[in-house]
Amino acid sequence: MNRTEALEIVKKQLTERRYIHTVGVMETAIELAKRFEADEKKAELAAIFHDYAKFRPKEEMKQIIIDQNMNPSLLEYNTELWHAPVGAFLVRNEVGITDKEVLDAIAYHTSGRPGMTLLEKIVYVADYIEPGRRFPGVDEVRELAKIDLNAALIQSLKNTISFLMTKHQAVYPDTMMTYNDLILGGQTHD
Amino acid sequence: MNRTEALEIVKKQLTERRYIHTVGVMETAIELAKRFEADEKKAELAAIFHDYAKFRPKEEMKQIIIDQNMNPSLLEYNTELWHAPVGAFLVRNEVGITDKEVLDAIAYHTSGRPGMTLLEKIVYVADYIEPGRRFPGVDEVRELAKIDLNAALIQSLKNTISFLMTKHQAVYPDTMMTYNDLILGGQTHD
Repeated sequence: MNRTEALEIVKKQLTERRYIHTVGVMETAIELAKRFEADEKKAELAAIFHDYAKFRPKEEMKQIIIDQNMNPSLLEYNTELWHAPVGAFLVRNEVGITDKEVLDAIAYHTSGRPGMTLLEKIVYVADYIEPGRRFPGVDEVRELAKIDLNAALIQSLKNTISFLMTKHQAVYPDTMMTYNDLILGGQTHD
Repeated sequence: MNRTEALEIVKKQLTERRYIHTVGVMETAIELAKRFEADEKKAELAAIFHDYAKFRPKEEMKQIIIDQNMNPSLLEYNTELWHAPVGAFLVRNEVGITDKEVLDAIAYHTSGRPGMTLLEKIVYVADYIEPGRRFPGVDEVRELAKIDLNAALIQSLKNTISFLMTKHQAVYPDTMMTYNDLILGGQTHD
Protein backbone atom coordinates (compact mmCIF):
# COMPACT_ATOMS: atom_id res chain seq x y z
CA MET A 1 0.00 0.00 0.00
CA ASN A 2 1.47 3.38 -0.95
CA ARG A 3 1.18 6.59 1.03
CA THR A 4 -1.65 8.05 -1.07
CA GLU A 5 -3.79 4.92 -0.71
CA ALA A 6 -3.14 4.74 3.02
CA LEU A 7 -3.99 8.41 3.56
CA GLU A 8 -7.18 8.00 1.55
CA ILE A 9 -8.31 5.11 3.73
CA VAL A 10 -7.57 6.85 7.02
CA LYS A 11 -9.07 10.18 5.94
CA LYS A 12 -12.54 8.61 5.97
CA GLN A 13 -12.09 7.67 9.64
CA LEU A 14 -11.01 11.10 10.89
CA THR A 15 -12.13 14.68 11.31
CA GLU A 16 -10.28 17.21 9.16
CA ARG A 17 -8.34 18.44 12.17
CA ARG A 18 -7.30 14.93 13.16
CA TYR A 19 -6.33 14.17 9.56
CA ILE A 20 -4.02 17.20 9.51
CA HIS A 21 -2.53 15.96 12.80
CA THR A 22 -2.03 12.53 11.21
CA VAL A 23 -0.12 14.00 8.26
CA GLY A 24 2.05 15.87 10.78
CA VAL A 25 2.75 12.65 12.68
CA MET A 26 3.57 10.90 9.41
CA GLU A 27 6.09 13.54 8.37
CA THR A 28 7.65 13.63 11.82
CA ALA A 29 7.83 9.85 12.07
CA ILE A 30 9.63 9.61 8.71
CA GLU A 31 12.08 12.28 9.83
CA LEU A 32 12.73 10.43 13.12
CA ALA A 33 13.07 7.10 11.28
CA LYS A 34 15.77 8.63 9.05
CA ARG A 35 17.54 10.18 12.04
CA PHE A 36 17.50 7.08 14.23
CA GLU A 37 17.82 4.49 11.47
CA ALA A 38 14.44 2.80 11.64
CA ASP A 39 12.41 1.46 8.71
CA GLU A 40 10.95 4.59 7.09
CA LYS A 41 8.11 2.78 5.32
CA LYS A 42 6.97 1.11 8.52
CA ALA A 43 7.20 4.39 10.42
CA GLU A 44 5.12 6.08 7.69
CA LEU A 45 2.46 3.34 7.70
CA ALA A 46 2.16 3.16 11.51
CA ALA A 47 1.95 6.95 11.75
CA ILE A 48 -0.76 7.17 9.08
CA PHE A 49 -2.92 4.62 10.87
CA HIS A 50 -2.08 5.45 14.50
CA ASP A 51 -5.43 7.21 15.13
CA TYR A 52 -7.53 4.97 12.85
CA ALA A 53 -9.95 4.09 15.71
CA LYS A 54 -10.00 7.54 17.32
CA PHE A 55 -13.63 8.26 16.48
CA ARG A 56 -15.15 4.84 16.94
CA PRO A 57 -17.99 4.73 19.47
CA LYS A 58 -16.78 3.93 22.99
CA GLU A 59 -19.14 0.95 23.18
CA GLU A 60 -17.63 -0.59 20.05
CA MET A 61 -14.11 -0.10 21.43
CA LYS A 62 -15.06 -1.52 24.80
CA GLN A 63 -16.55 -4.62 23.17
CA ILE A 64 -13.39 -5.18 21.11
CA ILE A 65 -11.21 -4.89 24.23
CA ILE A 66 -13.34 -7.55 25.90
CA ASP A 67 -13.78 -9.85 22.88
CA GLN A 68 -10.09 -9.74 21.92
CA ASN A 69 -8.92 -10.39 25.49
CA MET A 70 -6.96 -7.15 25.62
CA ASN A 71 -5.64 -6.01 29.01
CA PRO A 72 -8.83 -5.62 31.09
CA SER A 73 -7.24 -2.83 33.15
CA LEU A 74 -7.71 -0.63 30.06
CA LEU A 75 -11.38 -0.43 31.01
CA GLU A 76 -10.55 1.00 34.46
CA TYR A 77 -8.50 3.87 33.05
CA ASN A 78 -9.05 6.79 30.72
CA THR A 79 -11.10 5.91 27.63
CA GLU A 80 -8.55 7.94 25.60
CA LEU A 81 -6.27 4.90 25.89
CA TRP A 82 -8.65 2.60 24.06
CA HIS A 83 -8.26 3.78 20.47
CA ALA A 84 -4.62 2.65 20.32
CA PRO A 85 -4.92 -1.13 20.88
CA VAL A 86 -8.37 -1.15 19.25
CA GLY A 87 -6.87 0.73 16.30
CA ALA A 88 -4.19 -1.93 15.84
CA PHE A 89 -6.91 -4.59 15.80
CA LEU A 90 -9.10 -2.72 13.29
CA VAL A 91 -6.20 -1.80 11.04
CA ARG A 92 -5.41 -5.49 10.80
CA ASN A 93 -9.02 -6.58 10.26
CA GLU A 94 -10.39 -3.76 8.11
CA VAL A 95 -7.29 -2.51 6.29
CA GLY A 96 -5.41 -5.79 6.08
CA ILE A 97 -2.09 -4.65 7.52
CA THR A 98 -0.44 -7.64 9.20
CA ASP A 99 3.06 -6.37 9.97
CA LYS A 100 3.44 -6.94 13.72
CA GLU A 101 5.91 -4.08 14.17
CA VAL A 102 3.55 -1.63 12.52
CA LEU A 103 0.54 -2.90 14.49
CA ASP A 104 2.47 -2.72 17.79
CA ALA A 105 3.52 0.84 17.06
CA ILE A 106 -0.19 1.69 16.66
CA ALA A 107 -1.20 -0.35 19.72
CA TYR A 108 1.27 1.33 22.10
CA HIS A 109 1.29 4.89 20.76
CA THR A 110 -0.77 6.26 23.69
CA SER A 111 0.19 4.16 26.73
CA GLY A 112 3.70 3.15 25.80
CA ARG A 113 4.88 -0.14 27.28
CA PRO A 114 8.02 -1.38 29.00
CA GLY A 115 10.52 -2.53 26.36
CA MET A 116 9.25 -0.33 23.53
CA THR A 117 10.77 -1.05 20.11
CA LEU A 118 12.51 1.66 18.09
CA LEU A 119 9.45 1.95 15.82
CA GLU A 120 7.09 2.24 18.81
CA LYS A 121 9.24 5.01 20.27
CA ILE A 122 9.28 6.87 16.97
CA VAL A 123 5.49 6.85 16.57
CA TYR A 124 4.96 7.78 20.24
CA VAL A 125 7.34 10.74 20.04
CA ALA A 126 6.13 11.81 16.57
CA ASP A 127 2.57 11.90 17.90
CA TYR A 128 3.77 14.09 20.75
CA ILE A 129 5.87 16.60 18.80
CA GLU A 130 4.28 16.85 15.32
CA PRO A 131 4.22 20.49 14.15
CA GLY A 132 0.55 21.02 15.05
CA ARG A 133 1.11 20.27 18.74
CA ARG A 134 1.04 23.29 21.07
CA PHE A 135 1.34 22.65 24.78
CA PRO A 136 3.76 23.42 27.60
CA GLY A 137 6.92 21.35 27.35
CA VAL A 138 6.53 20.27 23.71
CA ASP A 139 9.45 22.41 22.48
CA GLU A 140 11.79 20.79 24.99
CA VAL A 141 10.81 17.36 23.66
CA ARG A 142 11.28 18.61 20.05
CA GLU A 143 14.82 19.68 20.90
CA LEU A 144 15.62 16.37 22.60
CA ALA A 145 14.23 14.45 19.61
CA LYS A 146 16.89 16.05 17.42
CA ILE A 147 19.62 14.16 19.23
CA ASP A 148 18.30 11.48 21.62
CA LEU A 149 15.07 9.55 21.05
CA ASN A 150 15.04 7.95 24.52
CA ALA A 151 15.55 11.30 26.21
CA ALA A 152 12.66 12.73 24.16
CA LEU A 153 10.46 9.78 25.09
CA ILE A 154 11.33 10.04 28.80
CA GLN A 155 10.56 13.76 28.79
CA SER A 156 7.22 13.25 27.01
CA LEU A 157 6.29 10.53 29.54
CA LYS A 158 7.22 12.83 32.44
CA ASN A 159 5.10 15.61 30.92
CA THR A 160 2.16 13.26 30.37
CA ILE A 161 2.29 11.81 33.90
CA SER A 162 2.61 15.30 35.44
CA PHE A 163 -0.24 16.59 33.28
CA LEU A 164 -2.53 13.72 34.35
CA MET A 165 -1.71 14.34 38.02
CA THR A 166 -2.39 18.06 37.61
CA LYS A 167 -5.78 17.12 36.17
CA HIS A 168 -6.36 14.77 39.12
CA GLN A 169 -6.55 11.81 36.74
CA ALA A 170 -5.24 8.27 37.17
CA VAL A 171 -2.02 7.30 35.37
CA TYR A 172 -2.15 4.08 33.37
CA PRO A 173 0.30 1.66 35.04
CA ASP A 174 2.05 0.78 31.77
CA THR A 175 2.78 4.45 31.18
CA MET A 176 4.53 4.72 34.54
CA MET A 177 6.29 1.41 33.88
CA THR A 178 7.47 2.63 30.46
CA TYR A 179 9.11 5.58 32.21
CA ASN A 180 10.64 3.31 34.88
CA ASP A 181 11.84 0.88 32.24
CA LEU A 182 13.68 3.62 30.35
CA ILE A 183 15.17 5.04 33.56
CA LEU A 184 16.26 1.62 34.79
CA GLY A 185 17.44 0.52 31.33
CA GLY A 186 15.23 -2.45 30.49
CA GLN A 187 15.07 -4.81 27.51
CA THR A 188 13.44 -4.06 24.16
CA HIS A 189 10.56 -6.15 22.75
CA ASP A 190 11.14 -8.24 19.62
CA MET B 1 4.72 -0.01 76.19
CA ASN B 2 4.38 3.66 77.07
CA ARG B 3 5.64 6.60 75.05
CA THR B 4 8.79 7.13 77.13
CA GLU B 5 9.84 3.49 76.83
CA ALA B 6 9.18 3.44 73.10
CA LEU B 7 11.11 6.66 72.50
CA GLU B 8 14.03 5.33 74.55
CA ILE B 9 14.20 2.20 72.41
CA VAL B 10 14.03 4.02 69.10
CA LYS B 11 16.48 6.75 70.13
CA LYS B 12 19.31 4.19 70.15
CA GLN B 13 18.57 3.37 66.48
CA LEU B 14 18.62 6.93 65.16
CA THR B 15 20.79 10.00 64.69
CA GLU B 16 19.81 13.01 66.78
CA ARG B 17 18.35 14.72 63.73
CA ARG B 18 16.25 11.69 62.82
CA TYR B 19 15.11 11.32 66.42
CA ILE B 20 13.84 14.92 66.41
CA HIS B 21 12.04 14.13 63.12
CA THR B 22 10.51 11.05 64.76
CA VAL B 23 9.14 13.10 67.68
CA GLY B 24 7.65 15.49 65.10
CA VAL B 25 6.01 12.61 63.26
CA MET B 26 4.68 11.26 66.56
CA GLU B 27 3.10 14.57 67.55
CA THR B 28 1.64 15.07 64.07
CA ALA B 29 0.30 11.51 63.89
CA ILE B 30 -1.47 11.90 67.25
CA GLU B 31 -2.99 15.18 66.06
CA LEU B 32 -4.18 13.55 62.81
CA ALA B 33 -5.53 10.53 64.70
CA LYS B 34 -7.62 12.86 66.88
CA ARG B 35 -8.83 14.82 63.86
CA PHE B 36 -9.74 11.82 61.71
CA GLU B 37 -10.85 9.51 64.54
CA ALA B 38 -8.15 6.86 64.41
CA ASP B 39 -6.63 5.01 67.37
CA GLU B 40 -4.28 7.57 68.96
CA LYS B 41 -2.13 5.02 70.78
CA LYS B 42 -1.56 3.01 67.61
CA ALA B 43 -0.76 6.16 65.66
CA GLU B 44 1.73 7.17 68.36
CA LEU B 45 3.40 3.76 68.41
CA ALA B 46 3.63 3.42 64.61
CA ALA B 47 5.01 6.96 64.30
CA ILE B 48 7.65 6.39 67.00
CA PHE B 49 8.93 3.26 65.26
CA HIS B 50 8.38 4.25 61.61
CA ASP B 51 12.11 4.89 60.96
CA TYR B 52 13.41 2.16 63.29
CA ALA B 53 15.44 0.52 60.46
CA LYS B 54 16.55 3.76 58.79
CA PHE B 55 20.23 3.35 59.64
CA ARG B 56 20.63 -0.38 59.26
CA PRO B 57 23.30 -1.41 56.76
CA LYS B 58 21.90 -1.87 53.23
CA GLU B 59 23.24 -5.41 53.10
CA GLU B 60 21.33 -6.37 56.26
CA MET B 61 18.12 -4.85 54.85
CA LYS B 62 18.59 -6.57 51.50
CA GLN B 63 19.06 -9.92 53.20
CA ILE B 64 15.90 -9.45 55.26
CA ILE B 65 13.89 -8.56 52.13
CA ILE B 66 15.12 -11.79 50.50
CA ASP B 67 14.83 -14.06 53.56
CA GLN B 68 11.36 -12.80 54.51
CA ASN B 69 10.03 -13.13 50.95
CA MET B 70 9.15 -9.46 50.75
CA ASN B 71 8.25 -8.02 47.34
CA PRO B 72 11.41 -8.66 45.26
CA SER B 73 10.76 -5.57 43.14
CA LEU B 74 11.87 -3.54 46.19
CA LEU B 75 15.42 -4.50 45.25
CA GLU B 76 15.08 -2.96 41.78
CA TYR B 77 14.00 0.43 43.11
CA ASN B 78 15.42 3.10 45.41
CA THR B 79 17.11 1.70 48.52
CA GLU B 80 15.31 4.44 50.49
CA LEU B 81 12.20 2.24 50.25
CA TRP B 82 13.77 -0.66 52.13
CA HIS B 83 13.75 0.65 55.71
CA ALA B 84 9.93 0.71 55.84
CA PRO B 85 9.07 -3.00 55.35
CA VAL B 86 12.34 -4.05 57.01
CA GLY B 87 11.50 -1.74 59.92
CA ALA B 88 8.12 -3.44 60.40
CA PHE B 89 9.90 -6.81 60.51
CA LEU B 90 12.55 -5.66 63.00
CA VAL B 91 10.07 -3.85 65.23
CA ARG B 92 8.20 -7.11 65.52
CA ASN B 93 11.30 -9.26 66.09
CA GLU B 94 13.46 -6.95 68.20
CA VAL B 95 10.90 -4.78 70.00
CA GLY B 96 8.11 -7.33 70.24
CA ILE B 97 5.30 -5.24 68.77
CA THR B 98 2.82 -7.61 67.13
CA ASP B 99 -0.14 -5.33 66.31
CA LYS B 100 -0.69 -5.83 62.57
CA GLU B 101 -2.15 -2.36 62.04
CA VAL B 102 0.86 -0.72 63.67
CA LEU B 103 3.32 -2.91 61.75
CA ASP B 104 1.55 -2.20 58.43
CA ALA B 105 1.64 1.53 59.10
CA ILE B 106 5.42 1.20 59.50
CA ALA B 107 5.77 -1.10 56.48
CA TYR B 108 3.94 1.22 54.07
CA HIS B 109 5.00 4.63 55.32
CA THR B 110 7.38 5.25 52.39
CA SER B 111 5.84 3.49 49.38
CA GLY B 112 2.17 3.63 50.30
CA ARG B 113 0.04 0.82 48.89
CA PRO B 114 -3.34 0.58 47.17
CA GLY B 115 -6.05 0.32 49.80
CA MET B 116 -4.18 2.07 52.61
CA THR B 117 -5.85 1.91 56.04
CA LEU B 118 -6.65 5.06 58.00
CA LEU B 119 -3.66 4.45 60.28
CA GLU B 120 -1.32 3.94 57.31
CA LYS B 121 -2.52 7.20 55.77
CA ILE B 122 -1.98 9.05 59.05
CA VAL B 123 1.61 7.87 59.46
CA TYR B 124 2.40 8.53 55.78
CA VAL B 125 1.04 12.07 55.91
CA ALA B 126 2.53 12.79 59.38
CA ASP B 127 5.94 11.75 58.06
CA TYR B 128 5.47 14.15 55.16
CA ILE B 129 4.26 17.21 57.06
CA GLU B 130 5.84 17.03 60.55
CA PRO B 131 7.00 20.51 61.64
CA GLY B 132 10.66 19.87 60.75
CA ARG B 133 9.90 19.25 57.07
CA ARG B 134 10.89 22.01 54.67
CA PHE B 135 10.41 21.45 50.97
CA PRO B 136 8.35 22.89 48.13
CA GLY B 137 4.71 21.90 48.39
CA VAL B 138 4.74 20.82 52.05
CA ASP B 139 2.62 23.78 53.23
CA GLU B 140 -0.11 22.91 50.74
CA VAL B 141 -0.23 19.37 52.15
CA ARG B 142 -0.27 20.77 55.72
CA GLU B 143 -3.31 22.87 54.82
CA LEU B 144 -5.10 19.93 53.19
CA ALA B 145 -4.36 17.74 56.22
CA LYS B 146 -6.40 20.11 58.37
CA ILE B 147 -9.57 19.12 56.58
CA ASP B 148 -9.15 16.12 54.24
CA LEU B 149 -6.67 13.29 54.87
CA ASN B 150 -7.13 11.70 51.43
CA ALA B 151 -6.58 15.02 49.67
CA ALA B 152 -3.40 15.53 51.72
CA LEU B 153 -2.22 12.03 50.86
CA ILE B 154 -2.96 12.47 47.15
CA GLN B 155 -1.08 15.77 47.08
CA SER B 156 1.93 14.29 48.89
CA LEU B 157 1.98 11.38 46.41
CA LYS B 158 1.79 13.79 43.48
CA ASN B 159 4.68 15.80 44.95
CA THR B 160 6.75 12.68 45.54
CA ILE B 161 6.16 11.28 42.04
CA SER B 162 6.94 14.65 40.44
CA PHE B 163 10.06 15.04 42.58
CA LEU B 164 11.34 11.61 41.58
CA MET B 165 10.74 12.36 37.88
CA THR B 166 12.53 15.71 38.23
CA LYS B 167 15.49 13.81 39.69
CA HIS B 168 15.29 11.33 36.79
CA GLN B 169 14.57 8.50 39.22
CA ALA B 170 12.24 5.53 38.87
CA VAL B 171 8.88 5.63 40.66
CA TYR B 172 8.03 2.55 42.75
CA PRO B 173 4.95 0.98 41.11
CA ASP B 174 3.01 0.74 44.38
CA THR B 175 3.45 4.47 44.92
CA MET B 176 1.86 5.21 41.53
CA MET B 177 -0.83 2.62 42.26
CA THR B 178 -1.57 4.20 45.63
CA TYR B 179 -2.23 7.48 43.84
CA ASN B 180 -4.38 5.74 41.20
CA ASP B 181 -6.27 3.85 43.87
CA LEU B 182 -7.17 7.06 45.70
CA ILE B 183 -8.16 8.80 42.46
CA LEU B 184 -10.25 5.86 41.29
CA GLY B 185 -11.72 5.25 44.77
CA GLY B 186 -10.52 1.76 45.66
CA GLN B 187 -11.10 -0.49 48.67
CA THR B 188 -9.30 -0.22 52.02
CA HIS B 189 -7.20 -3.06 53.47
CA ASP B 190 -8.39 -4.84 56.61
